[in-house]
Amino acid sequence: MRVTVLGAGYMGSAMAEVAAMRGHDVRLWGTWHDDALVEAIEQGKDHPRLKKKLDARVTPLRSDKLAEALAGAELVIHGVSSDGIIPVLTKAAAHLPDVPILSVTKGFLLGKSGKMERIDVVASEIAGRPLKYVHAAGPAKAIEVARRVLTWMVFASADVANARACAAAVGGEHLRVTVSDDIAGAEIASALKNAYATGLGLWDGLVGADCHNARAACFQQSVVEMAKLVVLGGGRAESAYGAAGVGDLHVTAAAGRNRAFGERVGKGKPAKTVAAEMLATGELTEGYPAIASARRWASEQGAAELPFLEALHRIVWEGAEVAPTLAALELST
Amino acid sequence: MRVTVLGAGYMGSAMAEVAAMRGHDVRLWGTWHDDALVEAIEQGKDHPRLKKKLDARVTPLRSDKLAEALAGAELVIHGVSSDGIIPVLTKAAAHLPDVPILSVTKGFLLGKSGKMERIDVVASEIAGRPLKYVHAAGPAKAIEVARRVLTWMVFASADVANARACAAAVGGEHLRVTVSDDIAGAEIASALKNAYATGLGLWDGLVGADCHNARAACFQQSVVEMAKLVVLGGGRAESAYGAAGVGDLHVTAAAGRNRAFGERVGKGKPAKTVAAEMLATGELTEGYPAIASARRWASEQGAAELPFLEALHRIVWEGAEVAPTLAALELST
Repeated sequence: MRVTVLGAGYMGSAMAEVAAMRGHDVRLWGTWHDDALVEAIEQGKDHPRLKKKLDARVTPLRSDKLAEALAGAELVIHGVSSDGIIPVLTKAAAHLPDVPILSVTKGFLLGKSGKMERIDVVASEIAGRPLKYVHAAGPAKAIEVARRVLTWMVFASADVANARACAAAVGGEHLRVTVSDDIAGAEIASALKNAYATGLGLWDGLVGADCHNARAACFQQSVVEMAKLVVLGGGRAESAYGAAGVGDLHVTAAAGRNRAFGERVGKGKPAKTVAAEMLATGELTEGYPAIASARRWASEQGAAELPFLEALHRIVWEGAEVAPTLAALELST
Repeated sequence: MRVTVLGAGYMGSAMAEVAAMRGHDVRLWGTWHDDALVEAIEQGKDHPRLKKKLDARVTPLRSDKLAEALAGAELVIHGVSSDGIIPVLTKAAAHLPDVPILSVTKGFLLGKSGKMERIDVVASEIAGRPLKYVHAAGPAKAIEVARRVLTWMVFASADVANARACAAAVGGEHLRVTVSDDIAGAEIASALKNAYATGLGLWDGLVGADCHNARAACFQQSVVEMAKLVVLGGGRAESAYGAAGVGDLHVTAAAGRNRAFGERVGKGKPAKTVAAEMLATGELTEGYPAIASARRWASEQGAAELPFLEALHRIVWEGAEVAPTLAALELST
């Protein structure tokens, strides 16, 4: 099967590796931000982020080869980070074959409506036709996926046949895939978890290791708020309680850059400073903008009573002090 | 207010400390297993488990003073570990005043029916009358509660007025309490979380730090199975998704003896050996018997399709090998 992966960062490259393991002919296209990554792959070096050599069946392609990359693809895997989606899909639209697009990208985007929307909605707007869009959700750190550490994911699409086709193409012994038709629930939960994981990191910074109770209470509060928002956005609460919500929040809050960003803010440094420092060392987290876009999306949906998301937004985007803001939290569970 | 705490271990003593902070006259009664703990308190030394001196308003009482301890109590806090409940309540029954009993104990017990039952059901059977039983649930490591680290709990009782009375008595700035009338849901979720936390520890032992995806997937699976069992036992799924379920599972799986027990079994040592070693060093975990009693309770309720609980039981109680048993897991989310 001819598989084209868009985006040569962590998750795109990990999925390219998985597709190659499954015997497919894989083209890994890098965006104009990925030149250094593609060059390392071309030279047979370790992938700079995944710290391993990719399978020889993965053919890297530079950003000027987008049409070539997509020609004849039977499956497209979309791994461009959320801020690159609109420009990449705009360039790709004319070349996208009518095949399932498996997207590992998480977030909300500004739609034609002028409101924040799910990525599948915006992607179809850009393409000018309904795409066979499949959202890959669940706890899946790219490094473990690429190293064949057992991972379970859920693939969600409006027409579950498209999710099944993607599962058949990339699922296997190390990447177990279940399917769902709740694309709204899976995408919304995935988009929210980066924000909430950042919030849980605040506790790690504020109190250090000795705040298990409060952090756990905010974990459950995050789940309750995520479920509420999923339902408000037309999804099913069970998607928030499963892989896309609870599972992905758990892994994101246990390790990774979003949690680390929150921890540094929790120690008292202004979020803007932490973001600048992390950007300078190449660690920029999606959690920082994700908090703003999640809150805007929630507000546009008419959501109320989201005490943890509101507190998080006040701390990270409005300069509220961490300790008194968290101490004043009134949790609903 | 006169408050009597039964059980001078971790959580009973932490709740005694909280009650004293709130200005109550507190008697802390130790069982016949707690003599060394009571002696330390009598001598003004640090509580051996909490590693701090208790508030001077806490009066310790030895196990032969049970009637004296309960006389005139306006609130009873029950902190005896699950294997001590039946003998303690049997002795206490004649002396128990008709006041709310706030219980921090978690588990299932063998009822008069010959089946596993919730603790409130068995406690009322022993007392020979319906008790004003309130179950304290949620992520609450005793050491943090005793040290005034911010903690949120939920108090659940069939008549929510009893839960409110307990919340008014011990809730405050550092211990935030919400109330619920879903005692079935809160107790079942609390009873299950020790088992599931042990299961999450298996991953830490099997793969080490590099298994975030699989561990998180099993966390979400635990939540899904807990919710299913809560509903089967007459509770509301939301109790599994809140403090009693998700929150307490999160804290128990992050730290503590149940997780550590699972980790050691995950490294390949037989569960019986690990249990004996931990018993010898005074660390015995409730997770070991909790797995057996949770599975028996689930089976008596007619539950099916609990792949993670079944795998855990096979590993811990039936000698199944860890790696192939976990690798064969078919998660439902």
